Amino acid sequence: MSARRSGSGSLAAFDAMWSDLESVGQARSGGYRRFAWTAEDHTLREWFAGECARRGLELTTDRVGNQWGWWWDGPGTVDDAVAAGRRAVVTGSHLDSVPDGGAFDGPLGVVSALAAVDRLREAGVRPQVPVAVTNFVDEEGARFGIACAGSRVLTGQLDPARALALTDADGTTYAEALRAAGRDPDDLGPDPQTLARVGAFVELHVEQGRALVDLGAPVAVASDIWPHGRWRFDFPGEANHAGTTRLQDRRDAMLGYADLVLGARHVATQRGCVATVGKVHVTPGGVNAIPSHVTGWLDARGADEEQVVATVAELTARGEEMGATVTRESWTPTTRFDQGLSERLRRVLDRDAEVSAPVLGTGAGHDAGILATAGVPSTMLFVRNPTGVSHSPAEHAEAADCHAGVAALADCLRDLTTGGATTGDGPQDGAA
Amino acid sequence: MSARRSGSGSLAAFDAMWSDLESVGQARSGGYRRFAWTAEDHTLREWFAGECARRGLELTTDRVGNQWGWWWDGPGTVDDAVAAGRRAVVTGSHLDSVPDGGAFDGPLGVVSALAAVDRLREAGVRPQVPVAVTNFVDEEGARFGIACAGSRVLTGQLDPARALALTDADGTTYAEALRAAGRDPDDLGPDPQTLARVGAFVELHVEQGRALVDLGAPVAVASDIWPHGRWRFDFPGEANHAGTTRLQDRRDAMLGYADLVLGARHVATQRGCVATVGKVHVTPGGVNAIPSHVTGWLDARGADEEQVVATVAELTARGEEMGATVTRESWTPTTRFDQGLSERLRRVLDRDAEVSAPVLGTGAGHDAGILATAGVPSTMLFVRNPTGVSHSPAEHAEAADCHAGVAALADCLRDLTTGGATTGDGPQDGAA
Repeated sequence: MSARRSGSGSLAAFDAMWSDLESVGQARSGGYRRFAWTAEDHTLREWFAGECARRGLELTTDRVGNQWGWWWDGPGTVDDAVAAGRRAVVTGSHLDSVPDGGAFDGPLGVVSALAAVDRLREAGVRPQVPVAVTNFVDEEGARFGIACAGSRVLTGQLDPARALALTDADGTTYAEALRAAGRDPDDLGPDPQTLARVGAFVELHVEQGRALVDLGAPVAVASDIWPHGRWRFDFPGEANHAGTTRLQDRRDAMLGYADLVLGARHVATQRGCVATVGKVHVTPGGVNAIPSHVTGWLDARGADEEQVVATVAELTARGEEMGATVTRESWTPTTRFDQGLSERLRRVLDRDAEVSAPVLGTGAGHDAGILATAGVPSTMLFVRNPTGVSHSPAEHAEAADCHAGVAALADCLRDLTTGGATTGDGPQDGAA
Repeated sequence: MSARRSGSGSLAAFDAMWSDLESVGQARSGGYRRFAWTAEDHTLREWFAGECARRGLELTTDRVGNQWGWWWDGPGTVDDAVAAGRRAVVTGSHLDSVPDGGAFDGPLGVVSALAAVDRLREAGVRPQVPVAVTNFVDEEGARFGIACAGSRVLTGQLDPARALALTDADGTTYAEALRAAGRDPDDLGPDPQTLARVGAFVELHVEQGRALVDLGAPVAVASDIWPHGRWRFDFPGEANHAGTTRLQDRRDAMLGYADLVLGARHVATQRGCVATVGKVHVTPGGVNAIPSHVTGWLDARGADEEQVVATVAELTARGEEMGATVTRESWTPTTRFDQGLSERLRRVLDRDAEVSAPVLGTGAGHDAGILATAGVPSTMLFVRNPTGVSHSPAEHAEAADCHAGVAALADCLRDLTTGGATTGDGPQDGAA
């Protein structure tokens, strides 16, 4: 039953799906530009619908536009099963990307979910609860600026009115983008009925760091999402001529910004967090003009919430000394995945692995975190990334590790859907 | 004859012209947006033509689009006078602005030039050589990126083919902008015939610093334009996720950039120059993305060319240590104004001033510098700016100092056009 011993049809299906997706939204750089509710997104959604149809999964689309492919061979409908206390085990991820993103962040989870369904069927598994594969819309927030918009609106964590008013770089509102994609913006809203179907959610994702490389393991289970937030630092200055203004007469907003950049690295190193300044806006932004205003955005995260808070407090004090106004734009405390669920999956992965499955925290936000916050028992699996790089064309996972991921996910789904035997094979597992 | 004792019609004319210009191209911020070959520029050019017509100055437009208003009451035409060795004394400046610029940079020189002509006529001065007032087009380079484009093309220092291919932020080429303004791009080119008319050029300009405030003088004479240049620093990095990448695994291009910003201030302070980093471009520029590439532009200038060169060399070495590629985008060595001309004007200004006229270098480029480089005897007058600020709505000159500037310029023009008596009044000066 282990992926490491298998060369089965589900893995060939994985490879075929992966190859189908390869060209969609790929830029000349090799990176991907797959943004919510664009033509590329439409192509990906049609591809997902086609893969569900090919497998006889019943496709539903919730009020937000997230796609769900349902597998339920038991008595009655999915809703009948849910009403009878058999809530679904759901797996999936997203198909959109950041600008010039890699191929794996998102799609690996969706393709692995479909291949895992194939694998369970190959093994003759008959789930005792419904199974669904999902494609969450707009996880990256690359177009409208809010990450995990699809799961946030679904679970009531993002006000639909606020979402509809978001604009992209061209000034197109979310409402207009929905209309252009053939959806009615009035439909957008929380969807408790869909959410009530979900008994557990497992999202497989490429690892966005090098922990698994160092540990020598292909797949890990998630423990939590680090506390994370972003802060805007506005440094004031005075516009003036770069050639004629004496240094002692200047109020150059860029100096405080540069101090923030170097300070963020220094303080984060001391406190064992990560801190990044990746975006800056300069007014007026001329080569020969002293900046009258510089806005820099700080992103700070870490395993230890107290240290993250202290890092930001220290940088805020330092920025204020340089005249900055500091505004918190977002803050998410530690998101703990369902401990019982994570531990159960870890034991499943350990069953016949050579290396014990690591349990890792992550600094990245995910739809699984949004669902966890909404009270859905959720966790994640991570697949080894030899470069450790993500949000870049260099993001990668070896084919063997992808296949190991599919097998691990299938093992987890079987365990969760066939009565929860956590050691040995479940009753439907004879054919594996 | 001194402005300080005068409330004459030419000063009232100055005030009226100033008031006419006040609203043209003024944004809500109070700053000006007067860019070459736009509707605002067209309005300003028509205003200039009208003021020339009102004074009976013969308007010509050279092959570049620079406007010239000629005053010659002597025998024959201006060209006859030039052929007879009587080359013109020219004064003026420009009417365009930087984005959100002040009211004075440029227009003060044009309005003062017209008022100075009025003042000479009030005084009954009959110049022995032609006098011209000029409006140079596109001095700031705000729209197409090259400063002093009008005087550069005129003097052969900017290839017309290169100029025509320049594009503005909307992708409009210089050639298209000329056509839209009713000009034939094929006409654009050096104009040695117009240039040959110019025996001397004096540009009056608002001071772009606080030297005159400290010295307690309303008007100064220029000595030179500091050596100045701009350098592009390209810092490489590796795109990665800001939340999941360990600090030790990062190659963050922003760190080198921040070091450049702080280094520029530090080294310039030590070496008595000015150095500014006012423009930056970050790839990919996302809040949660480690920058894979940061480009920063360094502007460096100073009175001492050796120190400027050493400053840039030191910053280049420092940048290269951080992995940067450094490219020189422009470099202009010290531009010396005509020493005899500057000294002559200084003596004119000293004649009845309470404070000896200061002689100042400047860190800003000007059309007068371009003409000087082309071999035209040129210099400048600077009028006190109480804020010291320029390229900003805070740029200012008091009315009394503007009037002093008009008087000083008129005194200089009289001296230059009536045979060069440098002490006492010239022969035509009886009515002053």
